[in-house]
Amino acid sequence: MIPCIIRRNAAAIRWPRPRYLASVASPVKEAAFFPDEPAKPHVVTAIPGPESKKIMSKLDQYQDTRSVFFVADFAKSKGNYIVDADGNTLLDVFAQIASIPVGYNNPAFMALAQKPAFQTALANRAALGVNPNVDWVDSVEKAFMAVAPKGMTNVFTVMCGSCANENAFKTAFMYKAARRRGDRDFNPDELNSCMKNQAPGSPDDMSILSFSQAFHGRLFGSLTATASKAIHKVDIPAFDWPKAPFPQLKYPLDDHKEHNRKVEQAALDQVERIITNAKKPVAGLVVEPIQSEGGDNHASPEFFRGLQAVCQKNDVLFIVDEVQTGVGATGTFWAHEAWQLPSPPDMVTFSKKFQAAGFYLSPRLRPAHAYRLYNTWMGDPVRAMQAAAIVQEIKDKQLLRNVQNVGSYLQDNLADMARSTPIENVRGQGAFIAFDLPDAKTRDSFLVDMRQRGVNIGGCGERTVRLRPMLTFQRQHADILLDTMKASLA
Amino acid sequence: MIPCIIRRNAAAIRWPRPRYLASVASPVKEAAFFPDEPAKPHVVTAIPGPESKKIMSKLDQYQDTRSVFFVADFAKSKGNYIVDADGNTLLDVFAQIASIPVGYNNPAFMALAQKPAFQTALANRAALGVNPNVDWVDSVEKAFMAVAPKGMTNVFTVMCGSCANENAFKTAFMYKAARRRGDRDFNPDELNSCMKNQAPGSPDDMSILSFSQAFHGRLFGSLTATASKAIHKVDIPAFDWPKAPFPQLKYPLDDHKEHNRKVEQAALDQVERIITNAKKPVAGLVVEPIQSEGGDNHASPEFFRGLQAVCQKNDVLFIVDEVQTGVGATGTFWAHEAWQLPSPPDMVTFSKKFQAAGFYLSPRLRPAHAYRLYNTWMGDPVRAMQAAAIVQEIKDKQLLRNVQNVGSYLQDNLADMARSTPIENVRGQGAFIAFDLPDAKTRDSFLVDMRQRGVNIGGCGERTVRLRPMLTFQRQHADILLDTMKASLA
Repeated sequence: MIPCIIRRNAAAIRWPRPRYLASVASPVKEAAFFPDEPAKPHVVTAIPGPESKKIMSKLDQYQDTRSVFFVADFAKSKGNYIVDADGNTLLDVFAQIASIPVGYNNPAFMALAQKPAFQTALANRAALGVNPNVDWVDSVEKAFMAVAPKGMTNVFTVMCGSCANENAFKTAFMYKAARRRGDRDFNPDELNSCMKNQAPGSPDDMSILSFSQAFHGRLFGSLTATASKAIHKVDIPAFDWPKAPFPQLKYPLDDHKEHNRKVEQAALDQVERIITNAKKPVAGLVVEPIQSEGGDNHASPEFFRGLQAVCQKNDVLFIVDEVQTGVGATGTFWAHEAWQLPSPPDMVTFSKKFQAAGFYLSPRLRPAHAYRLYNTWMGDPVRAMQAAAIVQEIKDKQLLRNVQNVGSYLQDNLADMARSTPIENVRGQGAFIAFDLPDAKTRDSFLVDMRQRGVNIGGCGERTVRLRPMLTFQRQHADILLDTMKASLA
Repeated sequence: MIPCIIRRNAAAIRWPRPRYLASVASPVKEAAFFPDEPAKPHVVTAIPGPESKKIMSKLDQYQDTRSVFFVADFAKSKGNYIVDADGNTLLDVFAQIASIPVGYNNPAFMALAQKPAFQTALANRAALGVNPNVDWVDSVEKAFMAVAPKGMTNVFTVMCGSCANENAFKTAFMYKAARRRGDRDFNPDELNSCMKNQAPGSPDDMSILSFSQAFHGRLFGSLTATASKAIHKVDIPAFDWPKAPFPQLKYPLDDHKEHNRKVEQAALDQVERIITNAKKPVAGLVVEPIQSEGGDNHASPEFFRGLQAVCQKNDVLFIVDEVQTGVGATGTFWAHEAWQLPSPPDMVTFSKKFQAAGFYLSPRLRPAHAYRLYNTWMGDPVRAMQAAAIVQEIKDKQLLRNVQNVGSYLQDNLADMARSTPIENVRGQGAFIAFDLPDAKTRDSFLVDMRQRGVNIGGCGERTVRLRPMLTFQRQHADILLDTMKASLA
């Protein structure tokens, strides 16, 4: 386990300081993680520039490119800086939608590419459920088990975050159905009806409960649980699964304690009412530690502990979606460590910055029959080896402490900036930080302007700007970000 | 385009010989593709052996290992031979569930691993919808467009076969809903209701039509379309989408022409009835060229042309699932080339042997709005580069011709063997071949015995044995397979 020591300056504490935190350490000296990365952004063309546009136009023959910001030249990118096809150098706090962990062209990753075992895994893609390689168990231990949430000993690996969530949902349904069935095996009626997508084999009386503004993916089950933007969902058939309102807190949290406490209690009461009265009984509840795509919506550790308690009371599996929050961005390896749960979640899903996707599960959730959780690849040994390298790099470079330090620094400075600029509702956990601008149009213009000034940055929700720096983001980068923001907002 | 020339010995023709085939070429001389691969299987322990069992036992602490055949030592595997943790060397005609294309440790793959562009792609995982790399369009052209089904110019890439099918289904729903809507944009009722998983925004009056025994994946939408085995489906909520009976042909096809023609016509009529009377109108029909997991069930080119015609007549999108059949195993790059469709399918999905997953689509199916087909990674540049290398290797080594030759040889010899052994219903297209044993128990024992005799082989359906050799499988390997089968069946 990576020890979960969070260090925050008193002024930057956004949560009541949990008792488990070690005493505040003195700041680690900020030696640059990438001595050879650019000193600052350098923009030479409009973004996207002519070369990006040329490539995008060629690509658009084959693929929709309307979502493309610019074309990257990853060979020239380094550390926290991305270089584009036109030679523009941008400080990157979007990081491939929050999915680059330890900097572009990290030497540890480049070294891994030279290793024979890595090249073997690349050239021979295993069907892990049939023929795991001799070193797969080693990867499982060094990547997934080394940072397993406390008390969690099992992991199922897949290919992406949506698949991770869908397999977690399947696990919840299998568990719930087995509980209902008791000791008996499947009966012929169940086995025959499911082949026609009909009850009782395909149960139409079970659901997954998720929250308004949640994002859990874009496949049919995960999209049903998603409610961040209508454009993701409209026209796609969905299951009739319920949504609970996510508490709408006021920021800064410390200034609105009483209001926020009431709002959270009301949300908890509503969750319990939905579970108790659900026309389709709830097999699992899925929640993000910070609702990311939906606008960086926070809730308190007390709220999440309350959620788990409601789930346990009603035999609902408690699923934590750490696809975007996991792997260090909040200052602990898993964001939910900050909740200090009395017992582990039932499942924790991951992807993005871990490069490998999957979910942790309690051993009691292993299906009674084989081949119930299964697919061809069942993950990717190559990405698992990279995940192990990420874990090692986080330890070696003390990157969690770095995130805590730079996160505090950023949060403090953004809080200051909120007094003299239009930014508001500054909120964050570690370096997983967001703030709002007055409206969507202002936010969108800000993102474009920041990019043109050399900072690659992204939005979420209606009018939110989200910071998703890599774990190697340091104070010198934070100063550039803050200065560029000041110039843009002036 | 790789020219789709199929060569078959007259005796081996299982389909009426299509007019588009070039005249029969003389067999290519069978130089070994891997001069340094083992000459034959070599088994030294029970399978799984003690070392496999030791590793499986360790792994089982973290992951369910009940489906594992044995632990592989990919570093020692070569060409068509897989070596296990105990040093057993097996001829592999299962090939990681039909997903190894050009042999273990193929030199082209090993050379690719040394290339700086490949290592850059590995160390910097792109979010392709935001920041495609400068060389992504090159991979798209060399991998996907170089072998695009005739007339198909667009491709959407994802991470696995289930995701490929689900995104194809989403595309069908978006297309159908847009057709219904006419020229107008989404209305507030649609945008609001979908956030609650309710109609009209989450339509409950559209479906995907698939076939009995089909396999299209294991996520919520793809699992709904799947009907191969109850154990995959039971307890998991499904959409109320219809299933059409897949024609149950008799084999050998040439001996049952009249019966098979009638059965196929009845199935076509039934498909049209389902589409015409569907309580949930059908947006798309999905079909495998050969139903693989469901038991290697074949149908004729006429049947598939008829299916497309029914779809076109009823404005139903025709989706061909080539996840298992694609990338050369049937002797053409895509199995559906053999159908000689008058116009391209609307979508063709792929994964497995291509290493990269996704689907081809008609440009008219691009959604009107951006971000409708979208996710974080949107594929994997590393796997796309491997796909390009596979395409090149298939061209360089004339592997499609190899598959045609060895496929004919295998089919002829298995047909002979059916006269004197319990195997029956020999059927195949190229080297994508199957046969039945009298019952599940006999089949399962046969698979175990074959593995113990040095041939790694898999089953599908109730009592079927499926051959899924790599494209580098040659006559010398076929002889070993046939001899081992004879010994096992004796």
